[in-house]
Amino acid sequence: MSQDRPIGVFDSGVGGLTVLQALRDRLPDEDFLYLGDTARLPYGTKTAATVRRYALNAANHLSAGNIKLLVVACNTATSYALDALAEASPMPVVGVVLPGVRAALATGATRIGVIGTEGTIRSDAYQQALSTLDPSIEVAATPCPLFVPLAEEGWGDHPVTDQIARHYLKDLLDWGAETIILGCTHYPMLTASLQRVVGPKVRLVDSARAVADAVIVEHADLVDVAAGGRGSVHIQLTDASDRFLRIATSILGVEPEHLTVVDIDGVA
Amino acid sequence: MSQDRPIGVFDSGVGGLTVLQALRDRLPDEDFLYLGDTARLPYGTKTAATVRRYALNAANHLSAGNIKLLVVACNTATSYALDALAEASPMPVVGVVLPGVRAALATGATRIGVIGTEGTIRSDAYQQALSTLDPSIEVAATPCPLFVPLAEEGWGDHPVTDQIARHYLKDLLDWGAETIILGCTHYPMLTASLQRVVGPKVRLVDSARAVADAVIVEHADLVDVAAGGRGSVHIQLTDASDRFLRIATSILGVEPEHLTVVDIDGVA
Repeated sequence: MSQDRPIGVFDSGVGGLTVLQALRDRLPDEDFLYLGDTARLPYGTKTAATVRRYALNAANHLSAGNIKLLVVACNTATSYALDALAEASPMPVVGVVLPGVRAALATGATRIGVIGTEGTIRSDAYQQALSTLDPSIEVAATPCPLFVPLAEEGWGDHPVTDQIARHYLKDLLDWGAETIILGCTHYPMLTASLQRVVGPKVRLVDSARAVADAVIVEHADLVDVAAGGRGSVHIQLTDASDRFLRIATSILGVEPEHLTVVDIDGVA
Repeated sequence: MSQDRPIGVFDSGVGGLTVLQALRDRLPDEDFLYLGDTARLPYGTKTAATVRRYALNAANHLSAGNIKLLVVACNTATSYALDALAEASPMPVVGVVLPGVRAALATGATRIGVIGTEGTIRSDAYQQALSTLDPSIEVAATPCPLFVPLAEEGWGDHPVTDQIARHYLKDLLDWGAETIILGCTHYPMLTASLQRVVGPKVRLVDSARAVADAVIVEHADLVDVAAGGRGSVHIQLTDASDRFLRIATSILGVEPEHLTVVDIDGVA
């Protein structure tokens, strides 16, 4: 098994580029192959069976790209399909839930809130992982369906987003959440609004950096932490509308190079 | 060709049920087969090529259900794919754009605004149809990407929706739009907010009723306008999450009977 093969990163769309950025910061010599299933997003409103089918299509497609490690940079796919992906994939699979949970526990909070898509919250993946790792922790979770469209609209620092966030987060704040896990890779784009609404004392945990740490710690044999910065990034999308390219550019800070459109419907 | 076959109605999701309801009101004896591509929605943010591929999958699937007429109850699919569907389909195809345009012209307005998804507005379908049917009309169009998620969240009569609508519609109102076409089958769910924002003098045109009129006038040989009310409705969705079932129930006023989940990926 050669270490020279790329690391695969998969998301329903372009929100997972926040995770790719964190991985590149820590592993600048690695090559990355990113797949965003933009033709079928969002995953967060769809059923477990559909999300699992899509995630397996994506993993099979990336597997054919000879990746050495698969990072599932989508909370809904991790929540519904991590077990199925780990079972079906020849390479190790890292999800976003456990790293985010560990980062939240590291804040020392005893009341932890989780926000995410309807699918992620309904799956109970975060709630179960928190309770398993530390049964003394109190957990409350709430879905925030409008946050992904607001992030995609570029309204991460907008009065309307503040107002919607106050609506969604009211119960978590009244309950006394000390730390809130951003359980969706789009949500870091809303940090300005969210931090304003929760106030300076509540910690917002973004799992992107925690995922990069997990990859380095758990797969030290597979990754090269040298800092040469010679790594490449190839981005594949299942649909490349101007909208997604605009969001991708905003997350990456530059227009994506090496971008191709691929069809993964039914890839087995 | 038997008149007894069902009328097919297709939408990216459940917004097209507003059109199905209008059709049932006018044609209570007809049988309907509705297909919502909820596994791959929304279409409004995706490219023309992807929307065309999905629409052809859907039409092929419905065609196998032996429909006598296909109503494309999705503005994005109509805007990007009506020609391709008409060419590929053995049955007549009716879209939502032309009926909506005729209804808007019938208001007597000289300045007509169009709102819709990014895809619908970018396709220029409404703007071209208005200018072709009446070159003296002035037209302005604006995409409203957050309206579909707001409708799906059930916030059709919510202060946040008013605020977002004021933001999106400001230029159209400053310009002096007298009539505004709701160029998305989800938007009738926002009528309370939208009418408040545009004021009582601006007419909002919802194409659902106009589509039913077009079917009756243009395909009188195919449809039965008797009022027996013995028609059936079968609903097929490509993904049946609680979320979509909740919205469907809210539009239909009752829980959908005869609901099945189908896979149309790549149906040729």
